[in-house]
Amino acid sequence: MVFQDEIKISTQGICDVYDITDEINKIVAKSKIKEGIAVISVIGSTAGLSTIEAEPNLIKDFKEFWEKLIPQDKNYHHNKTWGDGNGFSHLRSSLLGTSLSFPVSGGEVILGAWQQIIFVDFDNRSRERTAVVKVIGE
Amino acid sequence: MVFQDEIKISTQGICDVYDITDEINKIVAKSKIKEGIAVISVIGSTAGLSTIEAEPNLIKDFKEFWEKLIPQDKNYHHNKTWGDGNGFSHLRSSLLGTSLSFPVSGGEVILGAWQQIIFVDFDNRSRERTAVVKVIGE
Amino acid sequence: MVFQDEIKISTQGICDVYDITDEINKIVAKSKIKEGIAVISVIGSTAGLSTIEAEPNLIKDFKEFWEKLIPQDKNYHHNKTWGDGNGFSHLRSSLLGTSLSFPVSGGEVILGAWQQIIFVDFDNRSRERTAVVKVIGE
Repeated sequence: MVFQDEIKISTQGICDVYDITDEINKIVAKSKIKEGIAVISVIGSTAGLSTIEAEPNLIKDFKEFWEKLIPQDKNYHHNKTWGDGNGFSHLRSSLLGTSLSFPVSGGEVILGAWQQIIFVDFDNRSRERTAVVKVIGE
Repeated sequence: MVFQDEIKISTQGICDVYDITDEINKIVAKSKIKEGIAVISVIGSTAGLSTIEAEPNLIKDFKEFWEKLIPQDKNYHHNKTWGDGNGFSHLRSSLLGTSLSFPVSGGEVILGAWQQIIFVDFDNRSRERTAVVKVIGE
Repeated sequence: MVFQDEIKISTQGICDVYDITDEINKIVAKSKIKEGIAVISVIGSTAGLSTIEAEPNLIKDFKEFWEKLIPQDKNYHHNKTWGDGNGFSHLRSSLLGTSLSFPVSGGEVILGAWQQIIFVDFDNRSRERTAVVKVIGE
């Protein structure tokens, strides 16, 4: 069996973080697949996916980490291409990655108790985002 | 066909590295799946998975790299939440990632001769860890 | 259904970047799989895969980012093991990752309009590279 659905997210940009674990598990439940694999993929090149303990202080650390590693206001070459000033967003997205895979068991994605799946919008403005979830199995 | 099994690892923490390639291939062999996909996923938010040439000097470089990029003794906001001092572990885990996918062919995961799959425990103490391996195919 | 094919790439090394989106979609088309999952995996421990908007200025930013984060001429422990001077290549590969998964829909990998799949050769010399693409679905 193969099943697909989408998650829609209205984001603020500038490294805001959304816990999408529940929405992913709702899609896995809808698929009726009990044992298999779920692949989640962001459409776009200025966002990313990861897992984290989604508690506010750690999210603050996460944002500070990205601002230090790939600062927003550096003069990126990409900013000359379109003039949209989001070179930092693209680099962060490339490093964090835009897709994730998880085992599905008992009709749920396998995760730890303090491990959530997050959608990160690295862009420098608010966006309407789509993440595609594909579930395959039996 | 869908098959699942687990790898159990007793770790020391502080960025210790375990080559789990053989254990993954044993699970793929047990699955009897010859052609398909294997997804490996860590349960927990302070560990990670990657591929590397698992030779001692490079592992030393790998540990020094993480200590420089996300130092252990910085004053992370997360350390105020639970007081367990492992903010650095969570950030490293989020960046490296907690799951990997590989093609399976001829009943084995496809890798280069000098390319091993590693489990990295970023936590600041010893742990009993579980990695779930899901194999799907025929 | 399970299908496998390979992409062969002659690279220059030193962080050169190749857009392999079209080659991946050709393999998905050959597989005749319309709905499913594609896993792409690099054979080797000095290359990587990611997604990016593959425009020349951003690729320039991408190269500068890696040179700053994991410089080529640092004295890595790994360089003592084989004397091939590519410790930096291995570390970059481990961080970026050597495999990616994507949902397949309508016989194509799902991506944004400005989102391409890239193969990055981090080694310090030209190489003949292989990326394996496994497609599973119906």
